[in-house]
Amino acid sequence: MAVGKQNSVQCAPVKGVRLAAVAAGIRYAERLDLVLIELAEGSQVAGVFTQNAFCAAPVQVAKQHLQQSAPRYLLINTGNANAGTGTPGLEAARNSCAALAQLTGVDPAQVLPFSTGVIGERLPTDRLVAGLPAALDALDAGNWELAARGIMTTDTRPKCSSGTVEIGGQTVTLSGIAKGAGMIKPNMATMLAYVFTDAGISHVNLQSLLTAAVDKSFNRITVDGDTSTNDCCILVATGESAVQVDTEADLRAFSEVLQSLCQDLATQLIRDAEGATKFITIDIRGGATQQECLQVGYAIAESPLVKTAFFASDPNWGRILAAIGRAGLDNLDIAGVSIRLGETMLVEDGGLADGYTEADGQAEMARDEITISVDLNRGAFQEVLWTSDLSNDYVRINAEYRT
Amino acid sequence: MAVGKQNSVQCAPVKGVRLAAVAAGIRYAERLDLVLIELAEGSQVAGVFTQNAFCAAPVQVAKQHLQQSAPRYLLINTGNANAGTGTPGLEAARNSCAALAQLTGVDPAQVLPFSTGVIGERLPTDRLVAGLPAALDALDAGNWELAARGIMTTDTRPKCSSGTVEIGGQTVTLSGIAKGAGMIKPNMATMLAYVFTDAGISHVNLQSLLTAAVDKSFNRITVDGDTSTNDCCILVATGESAVQVDTEADLRAFSEVLQSLCQDLATQLIRDAEGATKFITIDIRGGATQQECLQVGYAIAESPLVKTAFFASDPNWGRILAAIGRAGLDNLDIAGVSIRLGETMLVEDGGLADGYTEADGQAEMARDEITISVDLNRGAFQEVLWTSDLSNDYVRINAEYRT
Repeated sequence: MAVGKQNSVQCAPVKGVRLAAVAAGIRYAERLDLVLIELAEGSQVAGVFTQNAFCAAPVQVAKQHLQQSAPRYLLINTGNANAGTGTPGLEAARNSCAALAQLTGVDPAQVLPFSTGVIGERLPTDRLVAGLPAALDALDAGNWELAARGIMTTDTRPKCSSGTVEIGGQTVTLSGIAKGAGMIKPNMATMLAYVFTDAGISHVNLQSLLTAAVDKSFNRITVDGDTSTNDCCILVATGESAVQVDTEADLRAFSEVLQSLCQDLATQLIRDAEGATKFITIDIRGGATQQECLQVGYAIAESPLVKTAFFASDPNWGRILAAIGRAGLDNLDIAGVSIRLGETMLVEDGGLADGYTEADGQAEMARDEITISVDLNRGAFQEVLWTSDLSNDYVRINAEYRT
Repeated sequence: MAVGKQNSVQCAPVKGVRLAAVAAGIRYAERLDLVLIELAEGSQVAGVFTQNAFCAAPVQVAKQHLQQSAPRYLLINTGNANAGTGTPGLEAARNSCAALAQLTGVDPAQVLPFSTGVIGERLPTDRLVAGLPAALDALDAGNWELAARGIMTTDTRPKCSSGTVEIGGQTVTLSGIAKGAGMIKPNMATMLAYVFTDAGISHVNLQSLLTAAVDKSFNRITVDGDTSTNDCCILVATGESAVQVDTEADLRAFSEVLQSLCQDLATQLIRDAEGATKFITIDIRGGATQQECLQVGYAIAESPLVKTAFFASDPNWGRILAAIGRAGLDNLDIAGVSIRLGETMLVEDGGLADGYTEADGQAEMARDEITISVDLNRGAFQEVLWTSDLSNDYVRINAEYRT
């Protein structure tokens, strides 16, 4: 189950990037669970990582390696998160990198490891390492959909997105893949997302571009309020297009396309959230600060009562109002707050809007894509975030699946 | 569905308190939905109220009346929360108080109104007022169970609790009732709770006693993280026993019994939480501050992934670990954190405890009453809170019922 149509899984190739996905039997037999991404020499790599205090072993190792050297390979396994695994987990992540380094002649620090799947079980390094030769053989510039499928866990769809930017009359390409359907409230990054461009971009600019884009995309989604131990978002600039992006205007143009691509991937995650039957956009404006817009947005987005009302297509504005009221804003005046559902005005002047009818509300709620707009009417800030509903299937999936 | 055995619904009468519950047809026909509680002249009344910014009309009126005069009646309706109803809602609450005042000869400010039920619909004051004569006729010192039933909404069980304290060789009695099964994360109070004693206690002491007791009981439970617009907890001291509680030692003795009674009521709410199949105690110790114990406790208690794992009786410690890790504690060292499930050590030294087996974990999780103990190992603070699991029935109830 997922909300809305499947996005295109066609990703434009990015010069300097080759991908492979193979079945290494990490947890299940005959399931793609090992993805290898090769980067051209000289690629710049930026990353943002989970803020969960218990970040997984591969996250710790990837952060170290990223500081030590210019990465040549991204090595991703599913089925096992290698999180909560202590020192043996760190060794398993390092050994995986070392094995790939030996096969390819690069330095172990040039391999960034990533894992997603069950928390707390030992990573079967032997199976992962045994899968590496087949992955190296399979590397191909056209394997984007395969790689997007290879990083899936409880996802029901692969998530891909592409874009282009004109820089000085030449075209640079951006393509990205992502995964994640539960334990989703990224805090600096999402479960796993990888974005690539053939532009040449300095490392310092690349990191700024990524942080800004993530802040308005992966950091604005929530399925269940649970921040994973394994979130990573990586941005690679291979420079193989021979187009440098370094002027302020070019960086801005690139930034816009990058942000839009990241929002596309992030909202694909929400459309495919565990058990999702609704795709919900929450638009909070009129806040005195950015922070209070986010507080109100997340209070609504993470309220189990609001989420079950969406599942039931019930225009239960009392639950939305109660969520706004408990968001912790000082001196919030109910009389100033308005709430719209799609184009329908729901709440004004502290109560139901004049002329609102239950039939109007039900018509809006019957859609599978719904926007709640809240105007706090006390400032100029605005934030948009995205979430899913809370369905029977969310409970079934998470009562059956061991994260 | 509720967890554990039904507590006794026998409440000891409290001198100076008479109760009644009648069916006034507020929302449904032939359902107890109007509860009236009469207090002896000279009773002291303390209250704590929801911190939701959009507190309901009756909450606003009850707070005003409590400051203006010595209350003689508590007037409670279910079926309609009279919240999000603007100025007409305030008028409806005031008119209800005035109607009762006229029938009884007291001042309208001596009536405290309370409502619980659907948010955002007009209170049918005429039906409520029409039910008052029958309620007055039915007032009786023995109607505790009936009153506890009369305040129920999605509750499946009435919640009552009684206790006694010896003061100077004499016995004073405490009895209380409460309701609430969803939209439960009280912030200064729970949905509705009323505790009575025949002791004589000054107003200032009564308010301190109530605040302290609530802080360790109703303010330590969460079903869904949603703070209601209508939470109220009221403590009444009628003084009819002729025993004064005013020395430090007596106040402390009284406080202990009051806290234990409030915890009994609060945990009854959790046992009867919407869709609950498990009663979960979360014990966080070794915190550097009280606040960080609570942050960790609520991160666990409100994680949909932890709650669905409990529903599935799955000892999914990775989800507990991930919740602790995202609780926002600075410099939290995973190596110092230990987690026990009942008597079974689950996590130590940053990973699974030595000797832990899945069978041990499953045996603990199979129980319907489970304690998670987390030692943060970085200070001397401890907090205990209580929660329920997230089941298919929670979704079903909240997709069907309009709060």
